Amino acid sequence: MEAAKEKLLQGSKFCFRSGRLYCESVNIKDLHATVERLYKSPFYVYSKAQLQKNISDYCTALNHSGLEHSVKANRNLELLRIISSSGCGATTVSGFEMQIAMQAGFPPSNILYNGNGKTMEEIEYAIRHGCMLNIDSQFDAAHILEAAKKLHKTARVLLRLNPDIDPNVHPYNTTGLQLSKFGIIDQHLSTVVEMVQSSPCVEVIGLHCHLGSTIDDLGVIASMCTYLLQKTRELRGKGFDSIRCINVGGGLSINYKREGGAVPTPAKLIAEIQKKLKGEKMQIILEPGRSIIGNTAILVTKVLGVKSSPSKTFVVTDGSMTEVIRPSLYSAYHHVDLLDYTADTGHGDKTLLDIVGPVCESADFLAKDRLLTLPQEGSGLVICDVGAYCASAASNYNMRPRPAEILIDQDQWRLIRRPETYEDLLRTCVGI
Amino acid sequence: MEAAKEKLLQGSKFCFRSGRLYCESVNIKDLHATVERLYKSPFYVYSKAQLQKNISDYCTALNHSGLEHSVKANRNLELLRIISSSGCGATTVSGFEMQIAMQAGFPPSNILYNGNGKTMEEIEYAIRHGCMLNIDSQFDAAHILEAAKKLHKTARVLLRLNPDIDPNVHPYNTTGLQLSKFGIIDQHLSTVVEMVQSSPCVEVIGLHCHLGSTIDDLGVIASMCTYLLQKTRELRGKGFDSIRCINVGGGLSINYKREGGAVPTPAKLIAEIQKKLKGEKMQIILEPGRSIIGNTAILVTKVLGVKSSPSKTFVVTDGSMTEVIRPSLYSAYHHVDLLDYTADTGHGDKTLLDIVGPVCESADFLAKDRLLTLPQEGSGLVICDVGAYCASAASNYNMRPRPAEILIDQDQWRLIRRPETYEDLLRTCVGI
Repeated sequence: MEAAKEKLLQGSKFCFRSGRLYCESVNIKDLHATVERLYKSPFYVYSKAQLQKNISDYCTALNHSGLEHSVKANRNLELLRIISSSGCGATTVSGFEMQIAMQAGFPPSNILYNGNGKTMEEIEYAIRHGCMLNIDSQFDAAHILEAAKKLHKTARVLLRLNPDIDPNVHPYNTTGLQLSKFGIIDQHLSTVVEMVQSSPCVEVIGLHCHLGSTIDDLGVIASMCTYLLQKTRELRGKGFDSIRCINVGGGLSINYKREGGAVPTPAKLIAEIQKKLKGEKMQIILEPGRSIIGNTAILVTKVLGVKSSPSKTFVVTDGSMTEVIRPSLYSAYHHVDLLDYTADTGHGDKTLLDIVGPVCESADFLAKDRLLTLPQEGSGLVICDVGAYCASAASNYNMRPRPAEILIDQDQWRLIRRPETYEDLLRTCVGI
Repeated sequence: MEAAKEKLLQGSKFCFRSGRLYCESVNIKDLHATVERLYKSPFYVYSKAQLQKNISDYCTALNHSGLEHSVKANRNLELLRIISSSGCGATTVSGFEMQIAMQAGFPPSNILYNGNGKTMEEIEYAIRHGCMLNIDSQFDAAHILEAAKKLHKTARVLLRLNPDIDPNVHPYNTTGLQLSKFGIIDQHLSTVVEMVQSSPCVEVIGLHCHLGSTIDDLGVIASMCTYLLQKTRELRGKGFDSIRCINVGGGLSINYKREGGAVPTPAKLIAEIQKKLKGEKMQIILEPGRSIIGNTAILVTKVLGVKSSPSKTFVVTDGSMTEVIRPSLYSAYHHVDLLDYTADTGHGDKTLLDIVGPVCESADFLAKDRLLTLPQEGSGLVICDVGAYCASAASNYNMRPRPAEILIDQDQWRLIRRPETYEDLLRTCVGI
């Protein structure tokens, strides 16, 4: 078997056996034929075992406390239920995300509501249900105080600080610089502190930073921990005895390139954080999304045709930017592979290929300049690591229905999201 | 009134009167209060008169023949009905777009099905209903011939040619270069011609090019016409007497910057095309989307708060990238304005502002570095020219419901899309 095919093997529940792609014990080519007939191609396939392994890796390293799944990465109800039943909390960024987290079984006290632009309605919803809230700015603090006072409730809050640290990732994945819209900058901290100190309706339980996403440099995480520790001591000095946790955010990258050792494991990340916070009595909270759910899924597509010019060879699949927007939105890399090397291979030589979809937009590409065995028309192609920020950010552009989601559990599969129909889409185009 | 406020006046149905924004005869601030109460903020507002004017401008210049609305720009059923009732055709890029175009009253014979990755099911649907099809590639030609033969029907087709002409716009808006995935390149044309000539099931009625979008340079349109004319003569020389139309695509920009004279009018565009094709007996087809629907709408948002740092001042609105993805996807510019200068002005001085939304993503911005009067919390802010590629490309990222769409007709308004509910969004997260 070739090196490219081996890449999927390392520690993944998606692997090749005799040139055929499997998720756990299910042959994906067979599954493609069945699901295409029942629900159409393309579709997402999730591995339950991979999801459970990812959660377990975090929980073991965290001693089973302080893990919060970031719902914006993936909000499939069935997947959320698996995550909540493992004892995790949830980080949410809208009223509806709080609502689905509760529906999935997360206890409200373990749900955090975060965001730079909360509405009063959402803030009241959070406080009424006993969710935690991050205070993101002066105006956000004012709104949360006002809502808590109105409801005669105590809001449990964390202060989201902007440490002005560059995580060295794509600007769209950077959230902790002063140029970012998130968090309280140093210059405003004392004002926010005075606001919350003067209110009996707010309990500050912790501090929070989030540097960004797709981070693989533990050095920047260490700098952030140093910053958070320093701020904790400052605030405790000002009488904030209630500060008992540090939320270091999420943002750990995953092995999108499928190259060994390139990305730190959760265990290494947590060891680094614990080293920095050693001696401080503090609960550590992490809120990963990508590293919990990202590598649990593939998008299974069909090759509609191949189109060559002197400058390019395009493989046109039925999957597109509407299912996987990350490449066009911020040049993200997803590993692409054939799903069957025994039958689908047009010829053995590898060719430099662009993998594109049928959407009428030049932004519609899934991968560029990939050295891959040229697939035949009608054969299957998979886009890897699409569990995070793909289905949750999907659109109906070109009036494309959002496709089925399938969950695999050992040798069984079942539908965990039905594909959209014409009637579903029509509903988004009419007044009644 | 200041210059910035005057900008909206020029030839637009959205204009300021005594410092207050109107759409036709409706005061937008009053509308905002009502719609927020009934359906929530933000929401899109369309002007029926502006839409009718845009169609009329094209129809007059085209002598009422050959205009096809690009459904991917906007697929609201009510708006499509207004367009179809004016006698236009429709260009579609998926099976569901064909279906909604028919539901909106476009006669199938005036519907064109275009795309680089058509499925067999969609091709058969088009042929069965008598829609026209663009042939995009060799494999697309093979599929269309196969489907027509299977159905014992004649497919009316245009050949979409790739002229390798650069329209000098954003790479994501460029579609007619050899590096693009669209169209038949010169080197493949003779093969495709042989394929269609050998089939009794296909009638080639025209040639088509589409250079891209947001084009304001008529010179590149002229070059494309020259190319199309030369190819028409070549093919007629090969016995294709059935070629009777030239589809020059869409792609005309609109005045996003609201600066006078920057963008050619439809009349100028058509005059340029007619000049180039003079003497040739040919129907001209145009398939604009943006220049029909783009300037017919604004997104009305509410300011949730203002956040300043030494490096940036952020105005956080309840509108976001989920309603208007163009700025983050390809750095598009949308004019932003207050909707009431009489009450909402915090202070008169203009400030350099970033307009951002509440989505937890640094890609979530609507405008950067705009010199604008600083709005107060709670006041209204409008994002202009969002009729094209905004609602149709919207997502539910962060579990945000797609908002209401309102149509204004003189002094009346009504709901032409109801906002999504929690139940609508839940349906996209479950298996049943």
